[in-house]
Amino acid sequence: MRFHVMTLFPDMVSGGLRTSITGRAIENHIFELNIVNIRDYSKDKHKHVDDYPYGGGAGMVMQPGPVYDCYQDIVKNMDKKPRVIYMTPQGKVFSQSIAEELSKEEELIFLCGHYEGIDERVLEEIVTDELSIGDYVLTGGELPAMVMIDSISRLIPGVLNNDDSAEYESFQDGLLEYPQYTRPETFMDKKVPAVLLSGHHGNIAKWRREESLKRTFLRRPELLGTAELTDSDKKILEKLRKNLDFPE
Amino acid sequence: MRFHVMTLFPDMVSGGLRTSITGRAIENHIFELNIVNIRDYSKDKHKHVDDYPYGGGAGMVMQPGPVYDCYQDIVKNMDKKPRVIYMTPQGKVFSQSIAEELSKEEELIFLCGHYEGIDERVLEEIVTDELSIGDYVLTGGELPAMVMIDSISRLIPGVLNNDDSAEYESFQDGLLEYPQYTRPETFMDKKVPAVLLSGHHGNIAKWRREESLKRTFLRRPELLGTAELTDSDKKILEKLRKNLDFPE
Repeated sequence: MRFHVMTLFPDMVSGGLRTSITGRAIENHIFELNIVNIRDYSKDKHKHVDDYPYGGGAGMVMQPGPVYDCYQDIVKNMDKKPRVIYMTPQGKVFSQSIAEELSKEEELIFLCGHYEGIDERVLEEIVTDELSIGDYVLTGGELPAMVMIDSISRLIPGVLNNDDSAEYESFQDGLLEYPQYTRPETFMDKKVPAVLLSGHHGNIAKWRREESLKRTFLRRPELLGTAELTDSDKKILEKLRKNLDFPE
Repeated sequence: MRFHVMTLFPDMVSGGLRTSITGRAIENHIFELNIVNIRDYSKDKHKHVDDYPYGGGAGMVMQPGPVYDCYQDIVKNMDKKPRVIYMTPQGKVFSQSIAEELSKEEELIFLCGHYEGIDERVLEEIVTDELSIGDYVLTGGELPAMVMIDSISRLIPGVLNNDDSAEYESFQDGLLEYPQYTRPETFMDKKVPAVLLSGHHGNIAKWRREESLKRTFLRRPELLGTAELTDSDKKILEKLRKNLDFPE
Protein backbone atom coordinates (compact mmCIF):
# COMPACT_ATOMS: atom_id res chain seq x y z
CA MET A 1 0.00 0.00 0.00
CA ARG A 2 1.14 3.52 -0.76
CA PHE A 3 0.10 6.72 1.00
CA HIS A 4 0.77 10.00 -0.79
CA VAL A 5 0.51 13.25 1.17
CA MET A 6 0.20 16.57 -0.70
CA THR A 7 1.22 19.27 1.78
CA LEU A 8 2.89 22.64 2.33
CA PHE A 9 4.57 21.25 5.47
CA PRO A 10 6.37 18.03 4.51
CA ASP A 11 8.60 18.09 7.62
CA MET A 12 5.58 18.04 9.88
CA VAL A 13 4.16 14.91 8.26
CA SER A 14 7.54 13.23 8.06
CA GLY A 15 8.37 14.00 11.71
CA GLY A 16 5.05 12.65 12.89
CA LEU A 17 4.93 9.43 10.86
CA ARG A 18 8.53 8.32 10.32
CA THR A 19 8.97 7.58 14.04
CA SER A 20 7.23 5.13 16.36
CA ILE A 21 5.29 2.16 15.02
CA THR A 22 4.43 3.63 11.62
CA GLY A 23 8.09 4.63 11.16
CA ARG A 24 9.24 1.06 11.81
CA ALA A 25 6.71 -0.26 9.27
CA ILE A 26 7.93 2.21 6.63
CA GLU A 27 11.55 1.17 7.26
CA ASN A 28 10.53 -2.48 6.88
CA HIS A 29 8.76 -1.66 3.57
CA ILE A 30 5.39 -2.84 4.87
CA PHE A 31 3.84 0.29 3.40
CA GLU A 32 5.18 3.33 1.57
CA LEU A 33 4.84 6.98 2.51
CA ASN A 34 5.35 9.51 -0.28
CA ILE A 35 5.26 13.10 0.99
CA VAL A 36 5.07 15.73 -1.76
CA ASN A 37 5.53 19.48 -1.28
CA ILE A 38 2.84 21.38 -3.19
CA ARG A 39 5.13 24.43 -3.18
CA ASP A 40 7.49 22.60 -5.58
CA TYR A 41 4.78 22.98 -8.23
CA SER A 42 4.47 26.74 -7.97
CA LYS A 43 5.29 28.51 -11.25
CA ASP A 44 5.82 31.76 -9.38
CA LYS A 45 9.45 32.83 -8.91
CA HIS A 46 8.76 33.46 -5.20
CA LYS A 47 7.17 29.98 -4.92
CA HIS A 48 3.80 31.40 -3.89
CA VAL A 49 0.93 28.93 -3.80
CA ASP A 50 -1.82 31.17 -2.42
CA ASP A 51 -3.60 34.39 -3.31
CA TYR A 52 -6.45 36.63 -2.08
CA PRO A 53 -9.99 35.23 -2.34
CA TYR A 54 -12.20 36.54 -5.15
CA GLY A 55 -15.03 38.49 -3.62
CA GLY A 56 -12.92 39.60 -0.65
CA GLY A 57 -12.63 38.35 2.92
CA ALA A 58 -9.92 37.46 5.39
CA GLY A 59 -7.12 35.01 4.73
CA MET A 60 -5.53 33.50 1.65
CA VAL A 61 -6.77 30.72 -0.62
CA MET A 62 -4.53 28.01 -2.10
CA GLN A 63 -4.41 28.35 -5.90
CA PRO A 64 -5.68 25.52 -8.11
CA GLY A 65 -2.64 25.29 -10.43
CA PRO A 66 0.08 24.00 -8.07
CA VAL A 67 -2.35 21.56 -6.40
CA TYR A 68 -3.41 20.18 -9.77
CA ASP A 69 0.13 19.85 -11.13
CA CYS A 70 1.26 18.13 -7.92
CA TYR A 71 -1.65 15.68 -8.21
CA GLN A 72 -0.89 14.97 -11.90
CA ASP A 73 2.71 14.20 -11.02
CA ILE A 74 1.64 11.69 -8.34
CA VAL A 75 -0.90 9.84 -10.50
CA LYS A 76 1.03 9.87 -13.78
CA ASN A 77 2.05 6.21 -13.57
CA MET A 78 -1.08 4.84 -11.93
CA ASP A 79 -3.42 2.51 -13.82
CA LYS A 80 -6.61 3.89 -12.31
CA LYS A 81 -7.68 7.08 -10.57
CA PRO A 82 -6.97 6.63 -6.85
CA ARG A 83 -9.14 7.94 -4.05
CA VAL A 84 -8.13 11.47 -3.08
CA ILE A 85 -9.03 12.49 0.45
CA TYR A 86 -9.41 16.15 1.35
CA MET A 87 -9.32 16.84 5.07
CA THR A 88 -11.96 19.41 5.96
CA PRO A 89 -14.25 20.03 8.93
CA GLN A 90 -17.03 19.93 6.32
CA GLY A 91 -16.39 16.28 5.53
CA LYS A 92 -17.92 13.05 6.72
CA VAL A 93 -16.61 12.13 10.17
CA PHE A 94 -13.80 9.55 10.02
CA SER A 95 -14.47 6.31 11.93
CA GLN A 96 -13.03 2.83 12.43
CA SER A 97 -15.23 1.45 9.66
CA ILE A 98 -13.97 4.08 7.19
CA ALA A 99 -10.40 3.16 8.24
CA GLU A 100 -11.14 -0.49 7.47
CA GLU A 101 -12.63 0.37 4.09
CA LEU A 102 -9.67 2.59 3.12
CA SER A 103 -7.11 -0.02 4.26
CA LYS A 104 -8.16 -2.14 1.25
CA GLU A 105 -6.97 0.46 -1.29
CA GLU A 106 -3.62 0.12 -3.10
CA GLU A 107 -2.97 3.86 -3.31
CA LEU A 108 -4.41 6.71 -1.27
CA ILE A 109 -3.77 10.42 -1.74
CA PHE A 110 -4.27 12.90 1.12
CA LEU A 111 -4.60 16.57 0.20
CA CYS A 112 -3.83 18.87 3.15
CA GLY A 113 -5.40 22.33 3.06
CA HIS A 114 -4.08 25.42 4.78
CA TYR A 115 -4.93 29.12 5.01
CA GLU A 116 -8.56 29.81 4.13
CA GLY A 117 -8.91 26.61 2.10
CA ILE A 118 -8.31 25.55 -1.51
CA ASP A 119 -9.81 26.91 -4.72
CA GLU A 120 -13.07 25.03 -5.25
CA ARG A 121 -12.42 24.21 -8.91
CA VAL A 122 -9.43 21.96 -8.24
CA LEU A 123 -11.28 20.22 -5.41
CA GLU A 124 -14.14 19.44 -7.83
CA GLU A 125 -11.60 18.12 -10.33
CA ILE A 126 -9.57 15.72 -8.16
CA VAL A 127 -11.13 15.02 -4.72
CA THR A 128 -13.15 11.82 -4.22
CA ASP A 129 -13.69 11.90 -0.41
CA GLU A 130 -14.04 14.78 2.03
CA LEU A 131 -13.32 13.64 5.58
CA SER A 132 -13.08 15.23 9.02
CA ILE A 133 -11.50 13.63 12.10
CA GLY A 134 -13.93 15.35 14.48
CA ASP A 135 -15.89 18.49 15.27
CA TYR A 136 -12.99 20.76 16.21
CA VAL A 137 -10.98 23.34 14.29
CA LEU A 138 -7.30 22.76 13.41
CA THR A 139 -4.63 24.91 11.74
CA GLY A 140 -4.39 22.63 8.70
CA GLY A 141 -4.97 19.23 7.16
CA GLU A 142 -1.63 17.67 8.13
CA LEU A 143 -2.53 16.33 11.59
CA PRO A 144 -5.83 14.84 10.37
CA ALA A 145 -3.95 13.16 7.48
CA MET A 146 -1.43 11.73 9.97
CA VAL A 147 -4.22 10.48 12.23
CA MET A 148 -5.97 8.76 9.32
CA ILE A 149 -2.75 7.22 8.00
CA ASP A 150 -1.88 5.93 11.49
CA SER A 151 -5.33 4.44 11.92
CA ILE A 152 -5.47 2.89 8.42
CA SER A 153 -1.88 1.60 8.35
CA ARG A 154 -2.17 -0.31 11.62
CA LEU A 155 -4.79 -2.48 9.92
CA ILE A 156 -2.23 -3.57 7.30
CA PRO A 157 -0.86 -7.03 8.21
CA GLY A 158 2.69 -6.75 9.59
CA VAL A 159 2.49 -3.16 10.82
CA LEU A 160 1.79 -4.18 14.42
CA ASN A 161 3.92 -6.85 16.08
CA ASN A 162 2.96 -9.02 19.03
CA ASP A 163 3.94 -6.48 21.62
CA ASP A 164 1.55 -3.90 20.34
CA SER A 165 -0.92 -6.06 18.44
CA ALA A 166 -3.81 -5.58 20.76
CA GLU A 167 -3.03 -2.07 21.82
CA TYR A 168 -5.87 0.37 22.08
CA GLU A 169 -8.24 -2.37 20.97
CA SER A 170 -11.29 -0.76 22.38
CA PHE A 171 -14.47 -1.03 20.36
CA GLN A 172 -13.55 -4.61 19.42
CA ASP A 173 -16.71 -6.12 20.78
CA GLY A 174 -18.26 -2.74 21.37
CA LEU A 175 -17.15 -2.43 25.02
CA LEU A 176 -14.46 -0.31 26.66
CA GLU A 177 -11.33 -2.08 27.91
CA TYR A 178 -10.80 -3.39 31.44
CA PRO A 179 -8.04 -1.78 33.57
CA GLN A 180 -4.50 -3.09 33.20
CA TYR A 181 -1.83 -3.69 35.86
CA THR A 182 1.85 -4.60 35.74
CA ARG A 183 4.91 -4.65 38.04
CA PRO A 184 5.35 -3.77 40.86
CA GLU A 185 2.66 -5.61 42.79
CA THR A 186 2.31 -2.68 45.20
CA PHE A 187 2.57 0.89 43.96
CA MET A 188 2.00 3.80 46.36
CA ASP A 189 0.21 1.46 48.78
CA LYS A 190 -2.12 0.32 46.01
CA LYS A 191 -2.12 -3.42 45.37
CA VAL A 192 -2.91 -5.15 42.10
CA PRO A 193 -6.41 -6.71 42.39
CA ALA A 194 -5.89 -10.14 43.99
CA VAL A 195 -7.80 -12.02 41.30
CA LEU A 196 -5.14 -11.10 38.72
CA LEU A 197 -2.48 -12.80 40.83
CA SER A 198 -4.59 -15.94 41.44
CA GLY A 199 -3.64 -17.77 38.26
CA HIS A 200 -7.29 -18.79 37.90
CA HIS A 201 -8.01 -18.05 34.25
CA GLY A 202 -11.76 -18.39 34.58
CA ASN A 203 -11.98 -15.90 37.42
CA ILE A 204 -9.62 -13.48 35.69
CA ALA A 205 -11.72 -13.53 32.50
CA LYS A 206 -14.89 -13.02 34.56
CA TRP A 207 -13.40 -10.09 36.50
CA ARG A 208 -12.17 -8.42 33.30
CA ARG A 209 -15.51 -8.78 31.59
CA GLU A 210 -17.27 -7.22 34.59
CA GLU A 211 -14.82 -4.32 34.61
CA SER A 212 -15.38 -3.75 30.86
CA LEU A 213 -19.12 -3.73 31.36
CA LYS A 214 -18.87 -1.42 34.37
CA ARG A 215 -16.71 1.10 32.53
CA THR A 216 -18.86 1.10 29.45
CA PHE A 217 -21.95 1.49 31.61
CA LEU A 218 -20.47 4.43 33.51
CA ARG A 219 -18.55 6.23 30.76
CA ARG A 220 -20.09 5.45 27.36
CA PRO A 221 -23.51 3.91 28.04
CA GLU A 222 -24.60 4.57 24.44
CA LEU A 223 -22.18 1.83 23.32
CA LEU A 224 -24.18 -0.83 25.17
CA GLY A 225 -26.95 -0.49 22.61
CA THR A 226 -24.80 -2.02 19.88
CA ALA A 227 -22.38 -4.20 21.92
CA GLU A 228 -22.48 -7.98 21.67
CA LEU A 229 -23.84 -9.03 25.06
CA THR A 230 -24.27 -12.53 26.50
CA ASP A 231 -27.01 -13.45 28.99
CA SER A 232 -24.46 -13.29 31.79
CA ASP A 233 -23.43 -9.78 30.62
CA LYS A 234 -27.04 -8.69 30.78
CA LYS A 235 -27.35 -9.95 34.36
CA ILE A 236 -24.25 -8.00 35.38
CA LEU A 237 -25.65 -4.84 33.79
CA GLU A 238 -28.97 -5.37 35.52
CA LYS A 239 -27.13 -5.52 38.85
CA LEU A 240 -25.15 -2.36 38.01
CA ARG A 241 -28.36 -0.50 37.23
CA LYS A 242 -29.94 -1.59 40.51
CA ASN A 243 -26.90 -0.51 42.52
CA LEU A 244 -27.11 2.86 40.87
CA ASP A 245 -30.79 3.28 41.79
CA PHE A 246 -30.38 2.03 45.36
CA PRO A 247 -26.74 2.44 46.32
CA GLU A 248 -25.74 -0.15 48.91
CA MET B 1 0.40 28.93 28.51
CA ARG B 2 2.51 25.83 28.82
CA PHE B 3 1.82 22.41 27.30
CA HIS B 4 3.70 19.44 28.73
CA VAL B 5 3.72 16.15 26.82
CA MET B 6 4.72 12.92 28.59
CA THR B 7 5.67 10.46 25.84
CA LEU B 8 7.89 7.57 24.77
CA PHE B 9 8.26 9.20 21.32
CA PRO B 10 9.43 12.79 21.88
CA ASP B 11 10.70 13.17 18.28
CA MET B 12 7.27 12.41 16.92
CA VAL B 13 5.63 15.17 18.96
CA SER B 14 8.43 17.60 18.30
CA GLY B 15 8.41 16.93 14.55
CA GLY B 16 4.68 17.41 14.34
CA LEU B 17 4.35 20.57 16.44
CA ARG B 18 7.59 22.51 16.00
CA THR B 19 6.80 23.22 12.35
CA SER B 20 3.99 25.10 10.65
CA ILE B 21 1.82 27.56 12.56
CA THR B 22 2.30 26.07 16.03
CA GLY B 23 6.07 25.98 15.44
CA ARG B 24 6.10 29.69 14.62
CA ALA B 25 4.11 30.46 17.79
CA ILE B 26 6.55 28.46 19.93
CA GLU B 27 9.52 30.29 18.38
CA ASN B 28 7.79 33.59 19.13
CA HIS B 29 7.23 32.51 22.76
CA ILE B 30 3.44 32.80 22.46
CA PHE B 31 3.11 29.45 24.18
CA GLU B 32 5.60 26.89 25.50
CA LEU B 33 5.90 23.23 24.57
CA ASN B 34 7.72 20.98 27.03
CA ILE B 35 8.17 17.44 25.71
CA VAL B 36 9.35 14.94 28.32
CA ASN B 37 10.56 11.40 27.62
CA ILE B 38 9.01 8.98 30.13
CA ARG B 39 11.88 6.57 29.40
CA ASP B 40 14.29 8.99 31.13
CA TYR B 41 12.55 8.07 34.40
CA SER B 42 13.10 4.34 34.13
CA LYS B 43 15.15 2.94 37.02
CA ASP B 44 15.94 -0.16 34.97
CA LYS B 45 19.44 -0.32 33.50
CA HIS B 46 17.95 -1.25 30.10
CA LYS B 47 15.57 1.72 30.37
CA HIS B 48 12.49 -0.48 30.24
CA VAL B 49 9.19 1.22 31.00
CA ASP B 50 6.78 -1.65 30.33
CA ASP B 51 6.14 -5.18 31.58
CA TYR B 52 3.67 -8.05 31.09
CA PRO B 53 0.11 -7.53 32.33
CA TYR B 54 -0.89 -9.21 35.60
CA GLY B 55 -3.49 -11.84 34.82
CA GLY B 56 -2.03 -12.53 31.36
CA GLY B 57 -3.04 -11.38 27.89
CA ALA B 58 -1.38 -9.94 24.80
CA GLY B 59 0.83 -6.88 24.78
CA MET B 60 2.79 -4.94 27.35
CA VAL B 61 1.58 -2.45 29.96
CA MET B 62 3.43 0.75 30.88
CA GLN B 63 4.65 0.59 34.47
CA PRO B 64 3.38 3.12 37.03
CA GLY B 65 6.78 4.15 38.45
CA PRO B 66 8.38 5.97 35.48
CA VAL B 67 5.08 7.69 34.62
CA TYR B 68 4.66 8.92 38.18
CA ASP B 69 8.24 10.12 38.55
CA CYS B 70 8.03 11.92 35.21
CA TYR B 71 4.82 13.63 36.35
CA GLN B 72 6.34 14.63 39.70
CA ASP B 73 9.28 16.21 37.92
CA ILE B 74 6.95 18.28 35.70
CA VAL B 75 4.72 19.55 38.52
CA LYS B 76 7.43 20.10 41.17
CA ASN B 77 7.43 23.88 40.80
CA MET B 78 3.74 24.41 40.13
CA ASP B 79 1.50 26.18 42.63
CA LYS B 80 -1.55 24.02 41.99
CA LYS B 81 -2.24 20.61 40.50
CA PRO B 82 -2.69 21.07 36.75
CA ARG B 83 -5.16 19.19 34.58
CA VAL B 84 -3.62 15.98 33.28
CA ILE B 85 -5.17 14.64 30.09
CA TYR B 86 -4.87 10.98 29.21
CA MET B 87 -5.64 10.20 25.57
CA THR B 88 -7.71 7.05 25.35
CA PRO B 89 -10.50 5.80 23.07
CA GLN B 90 -12.40 5.31 26.33
CA GLY B 91 -12.48 9.02 27.06
CA LYS B 92 -15.00 11.74 26.43
CA VAL B 93 -14.93 12.84 22.78
CA PHE B 94 -12.89 16.02 22.26
CA SER B 95 -14.80 18.95 20.70
CA GLN B 96 -14.42 22.64 19.95
CA SER B 97 -16.07 23.56 23.26
CA ILE B 98 -13.58 21.39 25.22
CA ALA B 99 -10.76 23.10 23.27
CA GLU B 100 -12.13 26.49 24.32
CA GLU B 101 -12.40 25.42 27.94
CA LEU B 102 -8.84 24.01 28.01
CA SER B 103 -7.39 27.11 26.30
CA LYS B 104 -8.08 29.02 29.54
CA GLU B 105 -5.65 26.87 31.59
CA GLU B 106 -2.14 28.05 32.45
CA GLU B 107 -0.57 24.60 32.36
CA LEU B 108 -1.78 21.41 30.69
CA ILE B 109 -0.17 17.98 30.85
CA PHE B 110 -0.81 15.36 28.15
CA LEU B 111 0.00 11.75 29.00
CA CYS B 112 0.48 9.60 25.89
CA GLY B 113 -0.12 5.87 26.29
CA HIS B 114 1.40 3.12 24.19
CA TYR B 115 1.42 -0.67 24.10
CA GLU B 116 -1.57 -2.18 25.89
CA GLY B 117 -2.13 0.91 28.05
CA ILE B 118 -0.84 2.22 31.37
CA ASP B 119 -1.05 0.67 34.83
CA GLU B 120 -4.40 1.74 36.27
CA ARG B 121 -3.01 2.84 39.65
CA VAL B 122 -0.94 5.70 38.27
CA LEU B 123 -3.84 6.84 36.08
CA GLU B 124 -6.04 7.00 39.21
CA GLU B 125 -3.32 8.97 40.97
CA ILE B 126 -2.58 11.70 38.41
CA VAL B 127 -5.12 11.88 35.54
CA THR B 128 -7.93 14.47 35.71
CA ASP B 129 -9.42 14.14 32.19
CA GLU B 130 -9.71 11.18 29.84
CA LEU B 131 -10.27 12.33 26.27
CA SER B 132 -10.58 10.72 22.84
CA ILE B 133 -10.33 12.54 19.49
CA GLY B 134 -12.82 10.20 17.82
CA ASP B 135 -14.12 6.66 17.46
CA TYR B 136 -11.15 5.11 15.68
CA VAL B 137 -8.12 3.16 16.92
CA LEU B 138 -4.59 4.64 16.81
CA THR B 139 -1.14 3.24 17.61
CA GLY B 140 -0.64 5.60 20.57
CA GLY B 141 -1.56 8.83 22.32
CA GLU B 142 0.92 11.11 20.53
CA LEU B 143 -1.18 12.07 17.49
CA PRO B 144 -4.29 12.78 19.61
CA ALA B 145 -2.16 14.95 21.92
CA MET B 146 -0.81 16.86 18.91
CA VAL B 147 -4.32 17.33 17.53
CA MET B 148 -5.58 18.68 20.86
CA ILE B 149 -2.58 20.99 21.31
CA ASP B 150 -3.02 22.34 17.76
CA SER B 151 -6.70 22.94 18.32
CA ILE B 152 -6.27 24.53 21.78
CA SER B 153 -3.22 26.64 20.92
CA ARG B 154 -4.82 28.30 17.90
CA LEU B 155 -7.32 29.86 20.32
CA ILE B 156 -4.48 31.61 22.19
CA PRO B 157 -4.27 35.27 21.06
CA GLY B 158 -1.26 35.78 18.77
CA VAL B 159 -0.92 32.21 17.53
CA LEU B 160 -2.79 32.93 14.30
CA ASN B 161 -1.89 35.96 12.24
CA ASN B 162 -4.08 37.77 9.74
CA ASP B 163 -3.27 35.46 6.88
CA ASP B 164 -4.54 32.41 8.65
CA SER B 165 -6.85 33.98 11.22
CA ALA B 166 -10.07 32.76 9.73
CA GLU B 167 -8.81 29.49 8.42
CA TYR B 168 -10.95 26.44 8.82
CA GLU B 169 -13.51 28.56 10.62
CA SER B 170 -16.35 26.23 10.02
CA PHE B 171 -18.88 25.80 12.82
CA GLN B 172 -18.61 29.51 13.60
CA ASP B 173 -22.29 30.19 13.20
CA GLY B 174 -23.12 26.53 12.92
CA LEU B 175 -22.98 26.41 9.10
CA LEU B 176 -20.40 24.94 6.73
CA GLU B 177 -18.22 27.36 4.76
CA TYR B 178 -18.98 28.65 1.28
CA PRO B 179 -16.58 27.68 -1.56
CA GLN B 180 -13.48 29.81 -2.10
CA TYR B 181 -11.85 30.94 -5.35
CA THR B 182 -8.59 32.70 -6.18
CA ARG B 183 -6.34 33.40 -9.22
CA PRO B 184 -6.50 32.58 -12.09
CA GLU B 185 -9.97 33.68 -13.16
CA THR B 186 -10.23 30.66 -15.48
CA PHE B 187 -8.81 27.29 -14.48
CA MET B 188 -9.29 24.26 -16.75
CA ASP B 189 -12.17 26.04 -18.51
CA LYS B 190 -13.86 26.67 -15.18
CA LYS B 191 -14.60 30.32 -14.43
CA VAL B 192 -14.85 31.92 -11.01
CA PRO B 193 -18.58 32.60 -10.30
CA ALA B 194 -19.34 36.00 -11.87
CA VAL B 195 -20.84 37.48 -8.70
CA LEU B 196 -17.45 37.27 -6.94
CA LEU B 197 -15.92 39.51 -9.65
CA SER B 198 -18.79 42.01 -9.55
CA GLY B 199 -17.47 44.10 -6.68
CA HIS B 200 -21.06 44.27 -5.33
CA HIS B 201 -20.58 43.50 -1.64
CA GLY B 202 -24.25 42.89 -0.93
CA ASN B 203 -24.63 40.36 -3.70
CA ILE B 204 -21.38 38.62 -2.75
CA ALA B 205 -22.52 38.26 0.87
CA LYS B 206 -25.90 36.96 -0.28
CA TRP B 207 -24.34 34.41 -2.65
CA ARG B 208 -21.92 33.16 0.03
CA ARG B 209 -24.70 32.76 2.58
CA GLU B 210 -26.75 30.76 0.11
CA GLU B 211 -23.79 28.52 -0.68
CA SER B 212 -23.18 27.94 3.05
CA LEU B 213 -26.80 27.02 3.56
CA LYS B 214 -26.83 24.76 0.49
CA ARG B 215 -23.71 22.86 1.61
CA THR B 216 -24.91 22.44 5.14
CA PHE B 217 -28.29 21.27 3.87
CA LEU B 218 -26.71 18.71 1.53
CA ARG B 219 -23.77 17.47 3.61
CA ARG B 220 -24.47 17.97 7.33
CA PRO B 221 -28.23 18.65 7.62
CA GLU B 222 -28.11 17.84 11.35
CA LEU B 223 -26.19 21.11 11.90
CA LEU B 224 -29.21 23.16 10.75
CA GLY B 225 -31.02 22.24 13.95
CA THR B 226 -28.65 24.33 16.07
CA ALA B 227 -27.45 26.95 13.54
CA GLU B 228 -28.38 30.62 13.95
CA LEU B 229 -30.80 31.21 11.08
CA THR B 230 -32.42 34.46 9.94
CA ASP B 231 -35.84 34.65 8.30
CA SER B 232 -34.15 35.02 4.93
CA ASP B 233 -32.06 31.88 5.64
CA LYS B 234 -35.22 29.97 6.40
CA LYS B 235 -36.78 31.03 3.08
CA ILE B 236 -33.70 29.84 1.21
CA LEU B 237 -33.83 26.48 2.96
CA GLU B 238 -37.51 26.18 2.20
CA LYS B 239 -36.70 26.67 -1.49
CA LEU B 240 -33.89 24.10 -1.34
CA ARG B 241 -36.23 21.55 0.18
CA LYS B 242 -38.86 22.19 -2.50
CA ASN B 243 -36.30 21.80 -5.29
CA LEU B 244 -35.26 18.50 -3.80
CA ASP B 245 -38.84 17.21 -3.74
CA PHE B 246 -39.72 18.43 -7.23
CA PRO B 247 -36.48 18.86 -9.13
CA GLU B 248 -36.86 21.52 -11.81
